Amino acid sequence: MGDVAWIAVDWGTSHLRAWLMARDGSILDRRSSDDGMGGLARDGFEPALCALVGAALPAPVLACGMVGSRQGWAAAPYAAVPCAPPTIHAAVAVRDADVRILPGVKQDSPADVMRGEETQIAGFLARNPGFDGVICLPGTHTKWAHVSAGEIVSFRTAMTGEMFALLSGHSVLRHSMGQGWDADAFATGVDQTLSRPESLAASLFSLRAEGLLADLPGDAARARLSGLLIGAELAAMRPYWLGQAVALVGAEALSAAYATALKAQGVPTQMADAEDMTLAGLTAAYAQLQGEAA
Amino acid sequence: MGDVAWIAVDWGTSHLRAWLMARDGSILDRRSSDDGMGGLARDGFEPALCALVGAALPAPVLACGMVGSRQGWAAAPYAAVPCAPPTIHAAVAVRDADVRILPGVKQDSPADVMRGEETQIAGFLARNPGFDGVICLPGTHTKWAHVSAGEIVSFRTAMTGEMFALLSGHSVLRHSMGQGWDADAFATGVDQTLSRPESLAASLFSLRAEGLLADLPGDAARARLSGLLIGAELAAMRPYWLGQAVALVGAEALSAAYATALKAQGVPTQMADAEDMTLAGLTAAYAQLQGEAA
Repeated sequence: MGDVAWIAVDWGTSHLRAWLMARDGSILDRRSSDDGMGGLARDGFEPALCALVGAALPAPVLACGMVGSRQGWAAAPYAAVPCAPPTIHAAVAVRDADVRILPGVKQDSPADVMRGEETQIAGFLARNPGFDGVICLPGTHTKWAHVSAGEIVSFRTAMTGEMFALLSGHSVLRHSMGQGWDADAFATGVDQTLSRPESLAASLFSLRAEGLLADLPGDAARARLSGLLIGAELAAMRPYWLGQAVALVGAEALSAAYATALKAQGVPTQMADAEDMTLAGLTAAYAQLQGEAA
Repeated sequence: MGDVAWIAVDWGTSHLRAWLMARDGSILDRRSSDDGMGGLARDGFEPALCALVGAALPAPVLACGMVGSRQGWAAAPYAAVPCAPPTIHAAVAVRDADVRILPGVKQDSPADVMRGEETQIAGFLARNPGFDGVICLPGTHTKWAHVSAGEIVSFRTAMTGEMFALLSGHSVLRHSMGQGWDADAFATGVDQTLSRPESLAASLFSLRAEGLLADLPGDAARARLSGLLIGAELAAMRPYWLGQAVALVGAEALSAAYATALKAQGVPTQMADAEDMTLAGLTAAYAQLQGEAA
């Protein structure tokens, strides 16, 4: 392993991910652990970081995500929209300033918050200078952001990923779920709740009942559940995507599902990998730090 | 304790409840255990029943609920709507016919099923002869049934109770939930999703964000979550309640929430206790059995 110039860290609720970076921007090593913010007390963050990348310290660490929340290592106060994604100058420093934590972004009305996605947006803007439009970041809590002139103008969150995980894994519907996918069933679900959002509440239990009465295959049930929830999300987020092009920043399979749903509405999409954009955003922050030092 | 003439049993997914009944219809004893259908293998039902009421056997047992499902003690095949709530003549007998299990009711399109609620409906009809209208049975899986001329004409299920339990107890929203109630916040939630069902997906995470940014009290967050979900349910079930009177059969606090939401739409309601109606339905089945024996 070559000289570690700095360490990029994505520290979310359930995971800690780190990249050991060379001065030329190449990745020397990737590491991750289950030491997410959610399982750590305040004095647990430094040991968790040292356990993962201790040998590379004291190389400067730039971190984003829930590590900067009130329950995290140190509170990095939100920037308020409209604003550019926070730069390194807004970071909170801990551990003798070896570790800098980037703030999240808030919106007062309608109330909303993000921590981590603003860094992905910064990365997307670094890779796509001058981008103007809508960025959707599918995930546990999917974010929709309107970005213009380098600023996050407004954003909204849908808990679609968490709802899918709860309903498919922990509700009565778990008995009806397969592991696979059915593209037609997904499209049917999206179309139903996007055209008739009020039908959602009465549609979910039908997945169970059709499994009992009509042998609905598990893959179709799983895909239709996803479609019903994503269709309901698209109905809520219509002001974001209607007549727009949408950049999807997320994991590949989930982003592809959103792309399919949006394409059916005539909305063109482009895709970027979430991890790549996180790293690009943290790299941009490191460049700001270098500029500051120069 | 006097002579036990028969035993009424409500055997659901998570609980087993029994009433030891005298010939004159009075209740000699009530008992319950956590031996719900969900935790029992097929050979576990008889021991679970004996553990609860063994000394009173072989008094005849009349049971309703998930005990009659495919995963239960014995499969009691669904009756199909339109139909009267199944009578004792449709029951499946086990344990040398000491135990009779009443069937549930199914609807092929839209696909739906109930097990247990049909007995509450039978009880409500026994107590309210000639009732014609809509019965709503709020619970984990809330049922809406159109009842006419003694028959269940059609019905639909909303998973509102289960959604509330998952979101308030197991999602990121759990951090924002109080234990109390806020009537205004409930009304605000109902009004929002009933008038704009498409807003649900973007509204849930706001409860968390308002907690972080605007110190939304936990009681208000909990009540508004309930309101948002019940409002979305009412939007889905509009064909059932619009221009109707609605009989609510459920636990008192939950039924009262539905009554409040419906009253705001100008819908009059009457309320009946779910346990009372279950017992009335099983009592009607016992009367049928006595008629058969006579």
